[in-house]
Amino acid sequence: MHFVDALQNKIRANYPWAASPLIVSAPMAKVAMPKLAVAVSRAGGLGFIAAGYHSDHLEDLLEEAEDLFQEGLPDTPVESEKGVPKFLRIGVGFITWSASLEKALPSFSRYCPAAVWLFAPPKGFQDLIPWATKIREATALRTKIWVQVGSVSDAVEVVNAIDPDVIVVQGLDAGGHSLARGASIVSLVPEINDKLRELRPYPQKRADVLAAGAISDSRGVAGAMALGAQGCVLGTRFLASPESMIAYGYQKAILDASDGGITTVRTKIYDKVRDIHGWPEGYDGRGLINKTFLDHLGGLSEIKNRELYREELNRGDEGYGPNGRLTTYAGTGVGLIKEVISAGDIVKSLREGARNILFGQHQPKL
Amino acid sequence: MHFVDALQNKIRANYPWAASPLIVSAPMAKVAMPKLAVAVSRAGGLGFIAAGYHSDHLEDLLEEAEDLFQEGLPDTPVESEKGVPKFLRIGVGFITWSASLEKALPSFSRYCPAAVWLFAPPKGFQDLIPWATKIREATALRTKIWVQVGSVSDAVEVVNAIDPDVIVVQGLDAGGHSLARGASIVSLVPEINDKLRELRPYPQKRADVLAAGAISDSRGVAGAMALGAQGCVLGTRFLASPESMIAYGYQKAILDASDGGITTVRTKIYDKVRDIHGWPEGYDGRGLINKTFLDHLGGLSEIKNRELYREELNRGDEGYGPNGRLTTYAGTGVGLIKEVISAGDIVKSLREGARNILFGQHQPKL
Repeated sequence: MHFVDALQNKIRANYPWAASPLIVSAPMAKVAMPKLAVAVSRAGGLGFIAAGYHSDHLEDLLEEAEDLFQEGLPDTPVESEKGVPKFLRIGVGFITWSASLEKALPSFSRYCPAAVWLFAPPKGFQDLIPWATKIREATALRTKIWVQVGSVSDAVEVVNAIDPDVIVVQGLDAGGHSLARGASIVSLVPEINDKLRELRPYPQKRADVLAAGAISDSRGVAGAMALGAQGCVLGTRFLASPESMIAYGYQKAILDASDGGITTVRTKIYDKVRDIHGWPEGYDGRGLINKTFLDHLGGLSEIKNRELYREELNRGDEGYGPNGRLTTYAGTGVGLIKEVISAGDIVKSLREGARNILFGQHQPKL
Repeated sequence: MHFVDALQNKIRANYPWAASPLIVSAPMAKVAMPKLAVAVSRAGGLGFIAAGYHSDHLEDLLEEAEDLFQEGLPDTPVESEKGVPKFLRIGVGFITWSASLEKALPSFSRYCPAAVWLFAPPKGFQDLIPWATKIREATALRTKIWVQVGSVSDAVEVVNAIDPDVIVVQGLDAGGHSLARGASIVSLVPEINDKLRELRPYPQKRADVLAAGAISDSRGVAGAMALGAQGCVLGTRFLASPESMIAYGYQKAILDASDGGITTVRTKIYDKVRDIHGWPEGYDGRGLINKTFLDHLGGLSEIKNRELYREELNRGDEGYGPNGRLTTYAGTGVGLIKEVISAGDIVKSLREGARNILFGQHQPKL
């Protein structure tokens, strides 16, 4: 009890605008832009901007987020009064094998986002030591360090390397990039929690554990909390919000899909046809099965598959879906998503629904 | 509320000795024998015997179970008084592409086990129609029909084919055989529940949903219940009980393993080296990675791998573990299992622990 309370107090202290259970929108490359992140944070969650593969436009993105926060909403001001350092109530995510810490640092000094999410270091988690050290220096520890992992051994390594504030435990049924092999959060969250308790017996020194992967509605949030997570990260669910930077065809494919364990697949081909190279050993991505994958399975060469992909881009929205070729990353929870809902309403309904299952009228009946 | 209550009442009516949440031991081929099944049911769970690939010794197994129930325990009598039909408080599982319904039927008439668990029909779920029809006839509907599925489309097919009493929703991180591709219970349980509500709006006509895969302790049980399951099935956890029919070396490998998403793998090679052929398209099995798999990955021929497997059998308990070759099926929850515990104590601690998380002093703190 004492331990859990201490952890929850830590989340409250670090993200004081956030309500519990903490709902987070993932830093989906190219999709999670300021509009989505700000909407999620405004609803009492924590929204992440994807800096993604590089850090070139980070300053612009953070400025845009700041503007959005200030847009006619006196009840959620950015603390930018004279003498008070800025603090931006969103996070920023980096694909660390590709992004540049040096380019990103000035933006951290200037905007102090609430969290940075570090993913996929090129060789090992010790590669994150400069990221953690310099960002902590630049923001006087105010930007919290989040790291995404997909296994117990990764969690141990990252704690030993940089003692992160948050470990995002990503199950193998998550959409987009993750470890190619792994477990779901069902075993991963409890086992990582046990391991963290061993490594850091004192709860104030221990990373919070957030769950990601296959969570699309309040039942998933409640399940993850019962498994021992302190909050939940969702990606695919937010693809079907008007605030996502996403093609209509992509969004339609998300709404149309069902039975995600069968209609999605983990593969590297969806990167290869887009000329994205350099993901570290052991990573791939989960997306809806389409012709790119089926032709790849049928033996089509990568060169030819890439050519067809480029032609398909001309079809625009028509290029998505099971009969299209364009990459539609999605997790196995895609079948639970039936309509486009505003990001703020997604956050609120997840939170309310989970509270109802855990404490209210929808508690399991025994 | 009304719906959930109705479902729980159905479980209570069908397995009147069982306590809630319902904890079930899976019919693991060769491992789940009468001792394990009876111990689980005696503790207020539901234990399954594995008839497995054939039905040849079913009569003996059920007789043994009946004897075990009667062994000096006046408080758990088998209802075998004159005039009262027998009812055996355990279930029996069949691998239906291989087992014989005709051979099994007389045992159902004679012993009336509480449930039959049907898995992996050779072509499609319509193959289960004779199984369901004849077992229902032979037991006047008293033996409940359970079917294991791994996808939403399978669940729909099985409801349309035989309207089972229970659907066991198996996540892809489960140990042993299942669909080679799929989702975890995180998305699968909610999506199948939604689909069943569409197909069978009246709850009394609707199959109960039980969750299987990656659940090893009370956190997993609580998580599955929050996701919407009416009970949980565990396999790997029961391997580490004295009542399992399992080699010491196998059991030791279970206790030693951790980080199951990384140290287990889905593959067909563990069947092939044991000359088990005939699993329908789309199935494989998850087991701890050992030399059989690594050599297979390295290109060793199946013939040579099988030879080495047979030689390894001579090493007995030494043949298990990461440096051995003998098949050690296990789910990703294997890392949460640290000691051998009696099956009855496993059932009780799962139930009590889950109740504590869902309603008691270990409720998540918000």
